[in-house]
Amino acid sequence: MNIQELAAHLQLSISTVSKAINGKPDVNPKTRQRVLDAAAQFGFSADAAARRLRTQTSDLIAFVLSAPQAHFAHPFFLNMLMGIDEKLEHSRYQLVVSSARSAEHEMQVLKRLVEMQKVDGVLFGRTRRQDARIAYLLERKVPFVAFGRSETPGEFAYLDIDHTVVGREGCARCVTLGHRRIGLVNAPNALMFSHHQRLGYEAALHAAGIPFDETLYIEADMTEEGGLAAARQMLEADDPPTAIISGHDLVAVGIYRAITERGLIPGRDIAVIGGDDHPFGTLLTPALTTFSAETLAAGKRMSEMLLAQLEGVPVNELQEVWSPDLIRRSSDGTPRLSTLKYSRGAKGNFLR
Amino acid sequence: MNIQELAAHLQLSISTVSKAINGKPDVNPKTRQRVLDAAAQFGFSADAAARRLRTQTSDLIAFVLSAPQAHFAHPFFLNMLMGIDEKLEHSRYQLVVSSARSAEHEMQVLKRLVEMQKVDGVLFGRTRRQDARIAYLLERKVPFVAFGRSETPGEFAYLDIDHTVVGREGCARCVTLGHRRIGLVNAPNALMFSHHQRLGYEAALHAAGIPFDETLYIEADMTEEGGLAAARQMLEADDPPTAIISGHDLVAVGIYRAITERGLIPGRDIAVIGGDDHPFGTLLTPALTTFSAETLAAGKRMSEMLLAQLEGVPVNELQEVWSPDLIRRSSDGTPRLSTLKYSRGAKGNFLR
Repeated sequence: MNIQELAAHLQLSISTVSKAINGKPDVNPKTRQRVLDAAAQFGFSADAAARRLRTQTSDLIAFVLSAPQAHFAHPFFLNMLMGIDEKLEHSRYQLVVSSARSAEHEMQVLKRLVEMQKVDGVLFGRTRRQDARIAYLLERKVPFVAFGRSETPGEFAYLDIDHTVVGREGCARCVTLGHRRIGLVNAPNALMFSHHQRLGYEAALHAAGIPFDETLYIEADMTEEGGLAAARQMLEADDPPTAIISGHDLVAVGIYRAITERGLIPGRDIAVIGGDDHPFGTLLTPALTTFSAETLAAGKRMSEMLLAQLEGVPVNELQEVWSPDLIRRSSDGTPRLSTLKYSRGAKGNFLR
Repeated sequence: MNIQELAAHLQLSISTVSKAINGKPDVNPKTRQRVLDAAAQFGFSADAAARRLRTQTSDLIAFVLSAPQAHFAHPFFLNMLMGIDEKLEHSRYQLVVSSARSAEHEMQVLKRLVEMQKVDGVLFGRTRRQDARIAYLLERKVPFVAFGRSETPGEFAYLDIDHTVVGREGCARCVTLGHRRIGLVNAPNALMFSHHQRLGYEAALHAAGIPFDETLYIEADMTEEGGLAAARQMLEADDPPTAIISGHDLVAVGIYRAITERGLIPGRDIAVIGGDDHPFGTLLTPALTTFSAETLAAGKRMSEMLLAQLEGVPVNELQEVWSPDLIRRSSDGTPRLSTLKYSRGAKGNFLR
């Protein structure tokens, strides 16, 4: 059955049937469903392969998941993925997903998608300050939307959740509570969001007249183990922090563990603030104070931005930075010097 | 540049270059990489679109994520997704992912993938006892691997994590600890794994000479709220359980909340056992006793099974049931009748 026969059977115009099948927006949803059902029933196909050949496009959009997104971090990117897919559903594009196990593998995956699969567009996660993916895609002129900004030369479309805000407001919240010794367990500075986080943290310290202290700034893997090791190091120092912030809730779990190990209570003895609103944050004791991360909405918006780009909207009109909000739960408390002093008993250190 | 020129440039045979580009297995990994790098460098493409047209296949494999996989459940299916993708990487196939928001939408998504995208194979999550997806794919003769068994007529390939074991061993563990009032908060019985879970639970009760009590069996949504409502109902009954099992860790979180609401302590006053080893299980207080769920490995295996099927292996040779293991943490305790009695003070009920 061809499209003419299908249209005749349905008593619809060929144009309407074509729009319905190709996912164009201006078709009544009921009509669209009727067309799709009939197409399925009669085994009609728009012959995607032939269309691909004709238009020289693949109708594929790729989302590349990157390796450092550890076990716990998953809901973040799965939410984003579901948002992306939801927005692509009524477009002509199909979402292909690839996961990369390392930075090198990531480039390999990306090249395969672009050179072999000829994807029409690419979406990917956490940008780096110097990002080989961005340089490559710009050079190959492949439309893309990055999750995050970058210092890589060239104009490109991005959606970023501003971690300058996480660093600044997280630190400022601790200052308001009376803390002066505020640690930051940060992701590696090569990641753009991590660099922003540090800039925000430094700005808040500066505004409060607190000098930057390198013993209170440690870069760590974005894992529970990373947070544990970094917080241990901070808490073992001669002049430990009374508050530790982090842009990542999983790292905050490691910080909780380091605090608990010393016989202290997170939130009461040492304030802790996370950064990306993981669902488990409410299950922790105490519930974790963190920042919002609208990943489902971000995924939807990234899809929209890519579709706009594919329709010719210039990339410099497709650059958005979203500001996260502090979510106050129970882990951001005032400094409690006596408890800390007690816990450090044997060594006899005192906090200022 | 065509394949002859590329082969000449690389001083390799056309056959080797073709194998490398088309992801066939018998190519040295270094050679493959050299071919892919050169192909990328010279802008050579295997012309996937032309090949698709010639072979009447799309080289696409679809993974359909389903709606009831709530917020917390995500790591389960994202792990599976990453496993699937890892195994497809060196095949000719590309993974496309679609998410469905409801059972109706699921069929719509599936039809679109099969009729419009002409995917070569399909993978999908949690099977139902009567599963329209299975009936449809069998009728359309589309190769697929289901995650889970089904009572739907017809032979098909599946990989299942056996929840008969979760129901049976979870209940038996409670019996060993001395419990006689053991509740099961189960997923809706229309889901195959849930039905299996109930069968296992009933078998363990029977083996221990404990009659099935319908007040101790409640079906609930696989969410925290579902677990909360079901456990509340059980704990408010005249003869409440001293242990509550569930095949789902998120439901167990809701059970914890219902226990805590009554001034009781999970694990000490009421034993709780989950079922699918969510990463947050270790973060709960007490850490949740649960069952293993090898989702990454399951994803890899499902990919392998689909590739085998595409190469002609009969589906009745592609049916696997994996047995999960009990992971003992701290939430499975012995019955503590005095505490329960105390908590029910005003109403003056006593436990047997």
